Amino acid sequence: MHVFYTPDIEDGAGAYALNEEESRHCSKVLRLGIGDQVSLVDGRGGLYQAEIASETKRQVTLKVISTTLAYQKRNHHLHIAVAPTKNIERLEWFLEKATEIGIDEITPIICAHSERKVIKEDRLVKVITAAVKQSLQAYHPQLNPAISFADFIRKESGAQKMIAHCIDDTSRTYISDIAQPHAAYLILIGPEGDFSPAEIDSALQSGFKPLTLGNTRLRTETAALAACFELNYLNR
Amino acid sequence: MHVFYTPDIEDGAGAYALNEEESRHCSKVLRLGIGDQVSLVDGRGGLYQAEIASETKRQVTLKVISTTLAYQKRNHHLHIAVAPTKNIERLEWFLEKATEIGIDEITPIICAHSERKVIKEDRLVKVITAAVKQSLQAYHPQLNPAISFADFIRKESGAQKMIAHCIDDTSRTYISDIAQPHAAYLILIGPEGDFSPAEIDSALQSGFKPLTLGNTRLRTETAALAACFELNYLNR
Repeated sequence: MHVFYTPDIEDGAGAYALNEEESRHCSKVLRLGIGDQVSLVDGRGGLYQAEIASETKRQVTLKVISTTLAYQKRNHHLHIAVAPTKNIERLEWFLEKATEIGIDEITPIICAHSERKVIKEDRLVKVITAAVKQSLQAYHPQLNPAISFADFIRKESGAQKMIAHCIDDTSRTYISDIAQPHAAYLILIGPEGDFSPAEIDSALQSGFKPLTLGNTRLRTETAALAACFELNYLNR
Repeated sequence: MHVFYTPDIEDGAGAYALNEEESRHCSKVLRLGIGDQVSLVDGRGGLYQAEIASETKRQVTLKVISTTLAYQKRNHHLHIAVAPTKNIERLEWFLEKATEIGIDEITPIICAHSERKVIKEDRLVKVITAAVKQSLQAYHPQLNPAISFADFIRKESGAQKMIAHCIDDTSRTYISDIAQPHAAYLILIGPEGDFSPAEIDSALQSGFKPLTLGNTRLRTETAALAACFELNYLNR
């Protein structure tokens, strides 16, 4: 079943018109015609089954057959703040995989050891949206603007705050040792070269708990996904 | 610290000579000289700290300073048999990430719905070796030759056998519901389009237990990595 991302559909709408670009994609690329069925996700939890009611070159209109609101609503809120990787494809890969596995919010943080300090937000959102459609997620993860590490950790957060770092000390615990179930979590993942000692200190002073993700040396994007897997696992 | 993969080093050797290619890499690319230290991993559990004892254009010889055998020896054996993805980069990505997280054996299986039926084994091994060095793993995961699904499941295996499929029936359990700790595991992961019903039936008849990896729709390589994460997590 083909999936369209329709953030502008009204909750419980009975009909929807695809925009010109998606209308062309629907009729010319997918070769769908009147009566064919498609799925719509609105990114706010709405999943719609619809069928093509009318079709012109410029506009495909859909009749909604069934509606599910709060489809697969998650029982926790996972926010991962991760330093953009030098090779942006690695961050894009993380965004795709985290969307498949389950994530609510991502913030790119610029750290002392960050080699990459700028990102193209719109491109990253496209990666997330493609994964939302491919994995049939009704909720669209939120990508926040990039922000400096110092500004980010100063922000208030009601979440359980943790920082994964690579400095081998005994204070680090596994996520599973400290995470409360069905809660909100905020996890910091550092750049290639890890967080600086000063960043780690300031995070700990801001109430972040130090984490280890295992005894192997993980790349930034692998560490971020490992945290995503572990928290989704703990909230099954 | 720079890491070299040296599968031909003898256990407990006191010295080692890099081959011509790696010698050139060591001196010309890394610009390392006499007295500089490097790490060696032999892929069989051996981790060596060594320093450069002599250097010519063609050959760099190393003096071993310290040796650790069975470095980070794993407490279980994980074998994932996965259908190669249509886009081979997705399989390569899985091999890199699984090596970082921890895996022992991978077998590409050609299934009824497989769009890709051939792989370049040597290229895939290069991906694994690069990840072994990057993540400082002393054990090199084994990549087996590609084999048909039917031939593969006929093979004897002392492992706990499981098959992850997408047909929504109540018999599927999570890995965590059935996996015994510190054991050997064999997990089957299907292609885009899933295993065929006939393949699932024959696997169940061969003693494979049906798995679900969660309630979201995962790509082949994501499902394979999810299984890898879960089994490493359960064996911490």
